[in-house]
Amino acid sequence: MYQIGDLSLVEPAIAALDPDKVIIVTDSNVWPLLGPVYTQVPSLAEAPVAVVKAGEANKNLESLAAVLEVITGSGATRRSLVVNIGGGMVTDLGGFAAAVFKRGIRFINIPTSLLGAVDASIGGKTGVDFMGFKNEVGAFANPAVTLVRTENLLTLPRAELLSGYAEMLKTGFIASEALLKRFDPERDLSRPEGLGELIGCCLAFKEEVTTEDPTEQGRRRILNFGHTAGHAFESLMLKRGNPVPHGCAVAHGMLVALLLSHMLRSMSASYAQDYAREVLMPYYGALKLECKDYPELLALMSHDKKNLRAGEISFVLLDAPGAPLWQPVEPKLIEAALDIYRDLTGQ
Amino acid sequence: MYQIGDLSLVEPAIAALDPDKVIIVTDSNVWPLLGPVYTQVPSLAEAPVAVVKAGEANKNLESLAAVLEVITGSGATRRSLVVNIGGGMVTDLGGFAAAVFKRGIRFINIPTSLLGAVDASIGGKTGVDFMGFKNEVGAFANPAVTLVRTENLLTLPRAELLSGYAEMLKTGFIASEALLKRFDPERDLSRPEGLGELIGCCLAFKEEVTTEDPTEQGRRRILNFGHTAGHAFESLMLKRGNPVPHGCAVAHGMLVALLLSHMLRSMSASYAQDYAREVLMPYYGALKLECKDYPELLALMSHDKKNLRAGEISFVLLDAPGAPLWQPVEPKLIEAALDIYRDLTGQ
Repeated sequence: MYQIGDLSLVEPAIAALDPDKVIIVTDSNVWPLLGPVYTQVPSLAEAPVAVVKAGEANKNLESLAAVLEVITGSGATRRSLVVNIGGGMVTDLGGFAAAVFKRGIRFINIPTSLLGAVDASIGGKTGVDFMGFKNEVGAFANPAVTLVRTENLLTLPRAELLSGYAEMLKTGFIASEALLKRFDPERDLSRPEGLGELIGCCLAFKEEVTTEDPTEQGRRRILNFGHTAGHAFESLMLKRGNPVPHGCAVAHGMLVALLLSHMLRSMSASYAQDYAREVLMPYYGALKLECKDYPELLALMSHDKKNLRAGEISFVLLDAPGAPLWQPVEPKLIEAALDIYRDLTGQ
Repeated sequence: MYQIGDLSLVEPAIAALDPDKVIIVTDSNVWPLLGPVYTQVPSLAEAPVAVVKAGEANKNLESLAAVLEVITGSGATRRSLVVNIGGGMVTDLGGFAAAVFKRGIRFINIPTSLLGAVDASIGGKTGVDFMGFKNEVGAFANPAVTLVRTENLLTLPRAELLSGYAEMLKTGFIASEALLKRFDPERDLSRPEGLGELIGCCLAFKEEVTTEDPTEQGRRRILNFGHTAGHAFESLMLKRGNPVPHGCAVAHGMLVALLLSHMLRSMSASYAQDYAREVLMPYYGALKLECKDYPELLALMSHDKKNLRAGEISFVLLDAPGAPLWQPVEPKLIEAALDIYRDLTGQ
């Protein structure tokens, strides 16, 4: 469940859950800026706060333990409530902490990034990174409610907007040609307030898919469009000490997936070409890759938790916008797609 | 689901799940003894093995990370299988690792202790201790199957038999007067092979209750008979550096619960008196307590994750054997019951 609105959403949403205690989970970037805002909400004014160090590098078991220490130390019970205020890192981590504290208590997500709002905050995926793998350890657990404060989005830095926008575009590709056509990065990214309606469409689509298939046995896998290569790009850049935002990595992964969709399915080549020229290059730029990176990228892809069999690499491909499907892809073909990716991005 | 039999149960149970990889989780007491046995099972012969340090003190987030490192390092996928071979510590820890690896993969429990067989191995509770609290962090996750090898039970040390036997007695108290009457510690503990049928009764009852209420919203709470005080005793003794087996702590907790059942409900006083004289004292001995321990015990009880409200302490009480119910109890009454506990155990 989600609600889109302003700060006034928060108090009634908490009160409706009647918790005996509220614990805030947030990070060191968000809290100095937004702490003064949220502590005006009566139910949050006296709440203990777990402030984790910002950044994906801190989405790990150590931060989980630190959050659990605050929750446990507060004397929380099974009727207590965790309120996650932050980007996807905070909602993934705080949601996982709530999912495992006393084997599961309730939580609310208040995403403060566009990516968090459209991707991490609903759908029930929580977790932390482990041994260099994204979200390797986690749980399926749904927030009691996700509160999207649209007024927040106006203040986001452009890199964050772009990261979230890529996940919205992903929704367009897998949902329908009609939704895809409503995207116009020139307009959407210069007037972020206009994103509100598109966000609503994306959340509605994601909620429909994840409610139908909460634990990713089937249809839900389509939400991973762009993510097989995207996660590998994200892990590679992180290892190189040059991290890229999740959504931006997915933006690049989508080009690889569009190329494979043309090679293996009925998707027209024009989608990949148009996407590379009109969206990826002008807004996201090229991700610098060399042939010698391929083995590592393939190894990262073969570790993707969505693979059904050890050693196999699966992709979400499209027969057309709105017609996604899921299939294993041969490493040779992935390498060919990476070659074309480099070509289309001028490398 | 559970199966009771011998080693020949194992291979078909694994084969039926068709995993792409099998990872064994066990501990440093069990594996030197039973490794040579289980590696004769074809599906287990080549499996990577996570051997955690034995003992409840190692049921923590650090051991969880160590197990997850073996699972992740093996290249496991969502179709892989964790096989837990050990006591309740191993099945709790390995089950939790399986529950959170890639947000959940399948696991089989092969309990090697009586306590594990009758308590930890079915019902879906997994987890680790945290900040001195038992099972403070965990997940509800059911094993694909639990395999109870009755021939193993013949080789158990007496202290382990007693620990498991207490949980079986607990089942008698909450299930029915008829089941309770079938217990005869003199006979059951001297001829442990005779326990097989009683184990079946206990597992059937636990499976019925936990299937009806997997996440402990209602009826399942009756399984905590003896556990409110029992967990507090267990934590206290652990802090004192003088740990007692879980089931033995529950054996003492049951006397406290029987006393409160007489004080607050219609349970005859004779059950507490008979239990103290005929079972607890001869088989379990007294747990040394002083008045100055009460505040710490009450604090531990108030942290019990089954409490519905912060600061409240709840107990499973009996109106009669087979008629359990759940209610908050005033600290003053708990102290009074602890006084009588000390009196009945000769302190």
